[in-house]
Amino acid sequence: MKISLPSGKIISGSPDTSILESLKNEGIYLTSSCGGKGTCGKCKIIIRSGSVNTRSAIKLTQEEIKKGYTLACQTFPEGDVLIEIPKESMLTLEGRIATGKSKDLQALLRSTGAGIEPLTERIVLQLPHPSLNDNISDLERLKRELFSKGLGCLRVPFRFLTDLAKTVRKKDWEVTLCIIHTEDCNEITNIFPDNKKTPRYGIAVDIGTTTLVVYLIDLADGSLVDIASTYNSQIRFGDDVITRIVYATEHNGLKNLNKAVITDINIFLSLLKKTHHVDFDSIDQFVIAGNTTMTHLFLGLDPSAIREEPYIPTANSFPLAFAGELGLKINPNTPVYAFPCVASYVGGDIVSGVLAARLHKKQELSLFMDIGTNGEIVLGNSEWLVAAACSAGPCFEGSGIKHGMRATEGAIEDVRINRETLEPEIKIIGDTAPMGICGSGMIDVVAEMFLTGILNQKGKLQQEVSKRIREGEDGLEFVVYSQDDRDIVLTEPDIENIIRAKAAIYAGFSILLKEVGYTFDDIHKVYIAGGFGKFLDIEKAVILGMLPDISREKFEYMGNTSITGAYLCAISRKMREEAEEIARKMTYLELSVSRSFMDEYVSALFIPHTNIDAFSSVKKLMKK
Amino acid sequence: MKISLPSGKIISGSPDTSILESLKNEGIYLTSSCGGKGTCGKCKIIIRSGSVNTRSAIKLTQEEIKKGYTLACQTFPEGDVLIEIPKESMLTLEGRIATGKSKDLQALLRSTGAGIEPLTERIVLQLPHPSLNDNISDLERLKRELFSKGLGCLRVPFRFLTDLAKTVRKKDWEVTLCIIHTEDCNEITNIFPDNKKTPRYGIAVDIGTTTLVVYLIDLADGSLVDIASTYNSQIRFGDDVITRIVYATEHNGLKNLNKAVITDINIFLSLLKKTHHVDFDSIDQFVIAGNTTMTHLFLGLDPSAIREEPYIPTANSFPLAFAGELGLKINPNTPVYAFPCVASYVGGDIVSGVLAARLHKKQELSLFMDIGTNGEIVLGNSEWLVAAACSAGPCFEGSGIKHGMRATEGAIEDVRINRETLEPEIKIIGDTAPMGICGSGMIDVVAEMFLTGILNQKGKLQQEVSKRIREGEDGLEFVVYSQDDRDIVLTEPDIENIIRAKAAIYAGFSILLKEVGYTFDDIHKVYIAGGFGKFLDIEKAVILGMLPDISREKFEYMGNTSITGAYLCAISRKMREEAEEIARKMTYLELSVSRSFMDEYVSALFIPHTNIDAFSSVKKLMKK
Repeated sequence: MKISLPSGKIISGSPDTSILESLKNEGIYLTSSCGGKGTCGKCKIIIRSGSVNTRSAIKLTQEEIKKGYTLACQTFPEGDVLIEIPKESMLTLEGRIATGKSKDLQALLRSTGAGIEPLTERIVLQLPHPSLNDNISDLERLKRELFSKGLGCLRVPFRFLTDLAKTVRKKDWEVTLCIIHTEDCNEITNIFPDNKKTPRYGIAVDIGTTTLVVYLIDLADGSLVDIASTYNSQIRFGDDVITRIVYATEHNGLKNLNKAVITDINIFLSLLKKTHHVDFDSIDQFVIAGNTTMTHLFLGLDPSAIREEPYIPTANSFPLAFAGELGLKINPNTPVYAFPCVASYVGGDIVSGVLAARLHKKQELSLFMDIGTNGEIVLGNSEWLVAAACSAGPCFEGSGIKHGMRATEGAIEDVRINRETLEPEIKIIGDTAPMGICGSGMIDVVAEMFLTGILNQKGKLQQEVSKRIREGEDGLEFVVYSQDDRDIVLTEPDIENIIRAKAAIYAGFSILLKEVGYTFDDIHKVYIAGGFGKFLDIEKAVILGMLPDISREKFEYMGNTSITGAYLCAISRKMREEAEEIARKMTYLELSVSRSFMDEYVSALFIPHTNIDAFSSVKKLMKK
Repeated sequence: MKISLPSGKIISGSPDTSILESLKNEGIYLTSSCGGKGTCGKCKIIIRSGSVNTRSAIKLTQEEIKKGYTLACQTFPEGDVLIEIPKESMLTLEGRIATGKSKDLQALLRSTGAGIEPLTERIVLQLPHPSLNDNISDLERLKRELFSKGLGCLRVPFRFLTDLAKTVRKKDWEVTLCIIHTEDCNEITNIFPDNKKTPRYGIAVDIGTTTLVVYLIDLADGSLVDIASTYNSQIRFGDDVITRIVYATEHNGLKNLNKAVITDINIFLSLLKKTHHVDFDSIDQFVIAGNTTMTHLFLGLDPSAIREEPYIPTANSFPLAFAGELGLKINPNTPVYAFPCVASYVGGDIVSGVLAARLHKKQELSLFMDIGTNGEIVLGNSEWLVAAACSAGPCFEGSGIKHGMRATEGAIEDVRINRETLEPEIKIIGDTAPMGICGSGMIDVVAEMFLTGILNQKGKLQQEVSKRIREGEDGLEFVVYSQDDRDIVLTEPDIENIIRAKAAIYAGFSILLKEVGYTFDDIHKVYIAGGFGKFLDIEKAVILGMLPDISREKFEYMGNTSITGAYLCAISRKMREEAEEIARKMTYLELSVSRSFMDEYVSALFIPHTNIDAFSSVKKLMKK
């Protein structure tokens, strides 16, 4: 049976294959955060004609169902169908963000003093033609030429011999070597006929528990060619790292988890290739940063022991792998560098974040916090670094929030509630209708609702205060934005999730300081990382009680620092050395064994906090 | 349809699959030198009942056909059949040879001053159990333990991470590392749970153009566990290296050639495993010696440029490969060492032979000759080595000779013709009925026939002299041995082949000496290698005119030196260093550009030679 699209494209479908799957098989990728379980409600399509069998529509409103909306993952064709894919359901690259971000990143790179010096170097050689008087073998000819140019010795792994005879002869004895300097020698990582000095690209990937971000970098100048991000489709096997490890262990699901993340990345690689006409042979670098479990799952390493006392990963520092060994669909010889981890619960994403925030270079005491699916906190300076992990959950990345979404086009990222009318005023990422609400928007709206009395200190909606509060499918909900086909709301369960997350962060923050004998006042700077959106309103985060009530100038919002660090390492060997040094230097503190952590957490389950005196500026505001 | 064997074993057959192929699929391997083309006549079976379709019986006598003999490669079942496999058709290990040979080899090893010190070392570590106070990763634990034992640093290629967590935990944190010392570090080549210090085996393989020899070596004491040899089944794509290169190039047949030799070796590996209960994880070394083309084909390297001026191989010195990369069915991480080659036509088998003959350690001028499918000659001493190649052809290895066979059980290796009765007296390898005639037997019988007047100087049979001469299918033939089901004969075309081969060898011999300005008298010792049999009768080889008529004490017959050198390298790192040194030191001389080579060759097409004065002792004998 046929599935037709308005563009005229026709793909084949079957009653046993969901439309999501059929589209995927044809290279049409929809956004989805639950991996096809029907629970995230993101892969919406519209059935224009034809008959389908729908397994679940639990995430759709009556309004939507009436209009022909259905979830592609839950819908199976019963005959030929004509479907329409709404813009917000399409998985796309995020080209528009690139230009601005690119400048910031290049500036950051310059500020570190590192040049553009990737791990892999390209050397073009014109070999002298062989003759009866110069009849050494192809391999010796290559080695001799490199040596005679003063470039040192050459180590050639066996696999490069297979095509060597053809390669050197293909373009009249001109070849391009990709090499890595190891110890005193050069090791070949690739060899191509002809002069292939340029272009050269690097790929940096942040593998979050909830979201994946991919950067395509031009290694000529370190500029960002494009960005892509999506949900980590491992989500279908569990929301957090523990559930995924359990799945990997008890269900022998390591292969499925590994395949899920590799497939996600391969989808983006193929989109990047198609969009920018990137030859996969020109990708010289592949760098990933992720927490310890994500790094293990990406590399196909058994994570079981991470979960059980005494919490042991297979490795914290990983030997270089090659794309082919990992199933990445680029040139199989491209080296893949995984950021070093510190311990089972402080991973490469944090090392990468510290690298990006430059914490390890500051004289004064600074604090770095990464609010992802976990919440990790690092305290330290150029002398020492201490890290801890608290379990914040994925809500600020849009997961577990009814209309939550990543900070991409269409996300409400900024909300102000008019003090007179109590009507919300919103800002949306991109020039588009709102599709959902991202982390910074959530913090804004909760803080604003609290300040305007729409929400009380316990996180309960006050129905009598606003006519925007209504009874929804999940209990009371606040209508943030009203539109024709779908309102955007924040429900009471959403708000509870947000409060739990902010409480875990604040409690971790307090306990880590206490453990090392410092107070909030000793901190010179607080670097905040996480996928909240382009701007995190610090003021609102303090009102919510996520951040401590200290001088606002001390805070700096950095966005996704894990991908920024990965970017730096893809470009510079110096940055990679710094990353290794950060990982070696960082000490891990286990918060869960601290008795006072649970006390602190429970105290923080209020807005802003049970101990309102710790939030004097908020106290003042509340009095107003 | 079913193919039954007298043992009661039943295998499945099909009208499209030759019985040879069906047997092979079930792990029953028949001997064959043409690789299933029906031209060598070696894979004989007897059809006891049932109907078959026979494509060719060209290699069978009428007598044999009457008795139900057929060639397994040319026979396709038409229904259920009962077959019998004669002993001489079975491919088997050669266990009986091992004991004697083993002592010789161990003595040779001792005489070199090298100890048993394989490339790969095994280290058993008992790792301390992890705890909350000692929670470094598995990889760091391994590295720390090795370092703390004073064994230096450890490099772990990425592929070993995948199962590391399971491996270290499987036997209560006891592990065995297989490591190679490279530069200042140890590189893991394998890791096993438990104490696997012993047993350890090495595999040495001589890949000849015509024959393959495999040794299984116990690395505890260097003793030979077993030997296997067979024809190189690449023969079906051509008899000599040039034809095979053409096939690889013009027919894109590199994969077929590679697969043929890898399959041959895998068959033996599985026979060795079954017979000696060898765990493939206990094989630490795999060493191959072969000529440059055979080495390329084994490694899957394109040999095209070897054939075309200026005759360039991909490599003469090969980086270590791993069994898995090559399709060898042992532990995929076992390192595979290929002997270095010198030039396109002087390969690793010659380097290996010189290593075994210790030519590179002699003060006096010596000559080394290896009479395989090519004939290679090396002249030199501890100061210098010069090598040349002549094309002798594969007849002394049994190929192209009607009843020729390798020097294995059942081969006639020694023939004397009674001066009175003119009846031959034969010696056979092993306690068995004769099945064919090997190289040393051929030399004997031709020399004896010549001395007794059965054969003239031009190599023509003199029918009036012996009643054992008869008209056969290929012209006149001499019945060496008469038996019930099959006589063993030497035909006039066989004799022509033998004379051409000996002429090429003698001519090469003469020209190389001439080129470097020496004569036969300057030579202190002549080492002769080749698969002739256990003993080569030097006297007979001089009479034939293959060897020069110089003092017989100067000659030493060494057998297959290529496999002996491979044996040495499988056991000792020192031997491997010597092999590399030999390859570096050896200079190659191109005989084919020497104008006098063809003249010398034509002069040598007589028994013993056109210039009878160069063979004074033979001249004397002839006068008798």
